Amino acid sequence: MVMADGKLIGIDWGTSTFRAVLMDGSGAVLARTASADGLLSVRDGAFEAVLARAIAPWETGGRLPIIASGMVTSRTGWVETPYLACPAGPADLARALKHLETPAGRHIAFVTGLSFRGPDGEPDVMRGEETQIAGLGSAGLGSAGLGLAGTRLVVMPGTHSKWVHVVDGRILGFRTAMTGDVFAAMKDNTVLKLTTGKSVDAPEAFAAAVRAGAGAAGAGLLGKLFRLRAGSLMGDFPAEETAERLSGLLIGAEIAEGRSFAPDSPTGILIVGGEALAARYAAAFSALGIGSEAAPADAAFAGQFSIARAANLV
Amino acid sequence: MVMADGKLIGIDWGTSTFRAVLMDGSGAVLARTASADGLLSVRDGAFEAVLARAIAPWETGGRLPIIASGMVTSRTGWVETPYLACPAGPADLARALKHLETPAGRHIAFVTGLSFRGPDGEPDVMRGEETQIAGLGSAGLGSAGLGLAGTRLVVMPGTHSKWVHVVDGRILGFRTAMTGDVFAAMKDNTVLKLTTGKSVDAPEAFAAAVRAGAGAAGAGLLGKLFRLRAGSLMGDFPAEETAERLSGLLIGAEIAEGRSFAPDSPTGILIVGGEALAARYAAAFSALGIGSEAAPADAAFAGQFSIARAANLV
Repeated sequence: MVMADGKLIGIDWGTSTFRAVLMDGSGAVLARTASADGLLSVRDGAFEAVLARAIAPWETGGRLPIIASGMVTSRTGWVETPYLACPAGPADLARALKHLETPAGRHIAFVTGLSFRGPDGEPDVMRGEETQIAGLGSAGLGSAGLGLAGTRLVVMPGTHSKWVHVVDGRILGFRTAMTGDVFAAMKDNTVLKLTTGKSVDAPEAFAAAVRAGAGAAGAGLLGKLFRLRAGSLMGDFPAEETAERLSGLLIGAEIAEGRSFAPDSPTGILIVGGEALAARYAAAFSALGIGSEAAPADAAFAGQFSIARAANLV
Repeated sequence: MVMADGKLIGIDWGTSTFRAVLMDGSGAVLARTASADGLLSVRDGAFEAVLARAIAPWETGGRLPIIASGMVTSRTGWVETPYLACPAGPADLARALKHLETPAGRHIAFVTGLSFRGPDGEPDVMRGEETQIAGLGSAGLGSAGLGLAGTRLVVMPGTHSKWVHVVDGRILGFRTAMTGDVFAAMKDNTVLKLTTGKSVDAPEAFAAAVRAGAGAAGAGLLGKLFRLRAGSLMGDFPAEETAERLSGLLIGAEIAEGRSFAPDSPTGILIVGGEALAARYAAAFSALGIGSEAAPADAAFAGQFSIARAANLV
């Protein structure tokens, strides 16, 4: 394939990184670029200058349509998009795209995030994950038996883990658990930091902590957290295991919560995340006797293509 | 009263502060001193030099017995004492005192902390609170109808909140919730910090959050925490209320956990803590329809006297 086949540019612009791909008319990636030019590093709103520098090699034949998602559509990004209410799939996201014609003659379509209110009316939001989900169906998963046909419970672990209820590729609802954010904050800023200095791998300890965290549907977490300190002081386990146990406790609690959100996933749980984190969650599910399978982590650009095609941008 | 009546010196030495009192033979306080000479500021183990400087005015008539409690008995303190297993009251603490004869001829008795294993064998520890509890019975509470006769559930809110099951002044068991530590870590180090910058008092929001946090016995906390972010983004409440709502959510979860630890306190809950924090917990109990009453916050020196007397130090 050659550059001349380029039909769409996809941009995944986060707070600390910039990534872009050039795609052909079938969504295949022809070229990639990435840099540390995250949103926080952009001065005086010079978003287009940063973008232009990055994609200049792909524009030698003229402008191409651009689709963007990620934190670039948040309040601290380039163009803030409102949240679209669930249920929503690629076609809904296509209709909700926010279009920008730039002074330099570029057309950029920004993907919105999604909002959801649970049965109790409580609010939840996502921004970026909806695009990854849109990409799962078209990322060759079908042939591996992992397609998003039917009802799926998709778990996307991370700073703010998402548990997403997907039916035939549309997101019916979701629930966020603040697991990774809480883990990092606690590991470095509570009494546990005294015992998490030198960490060791401890799969057995992790599994035990997952089971403890999941006990009684994740209740009692504030007490269980302190027992990490007490157990280390009383010699129940080596202090070096504290980080693994903290991770297990929180992930166990997250799983107990998530299962109560969507208890009856007939086809097992699909984990979407980076390799190390996906493996950690798979181990946690396994410790609880729950089956899971992993999907390719990075379906964001496939999702952008799927939304762009639904919007007739390509 | 005059200095010559001094019979016992009590030391409450924490990581960032040093406090001491001179007591007479009945436990009445004759004089007080306090400084920022916390344990962390002591160089090269020169604990006795710092102590001697602080209490010099009280030693003009010769050495007096000294009793010390607080973090001064932890691994990072002066003399590390082991944990004494529950049940334990003042007489048990008196027997477990760790005695030190210093080179300068002082006699110092260090109070040990307590350990407890719940029905499930899980570990818990306290260090300092046992001395406060020992002081509650002798701090004039009896005459106010708050004495520790009978069965009491004592709640000591703080960085590591203690829920203490006390029968006739002896501690039968306890449970720690990491509430304050988690609150501070999350408020300053998670995505919530974006919305907790300017905080406002919001008693209604606090009460609502307490009820949400206590729902289903404190389960689902990781999801509820993220809803603080989502609710603010979706305009459900002003971002300035986030800190109050975070506080309410965590305290509500703590109360749900604590109630399941000791559900049948026949005489109501006794809150022991600083004025502002005690008032916050009283409001939280009230939001849940649970009665509580407050005890004087600082019974540490009264507790030291009670233990010293049981040990015939005074």
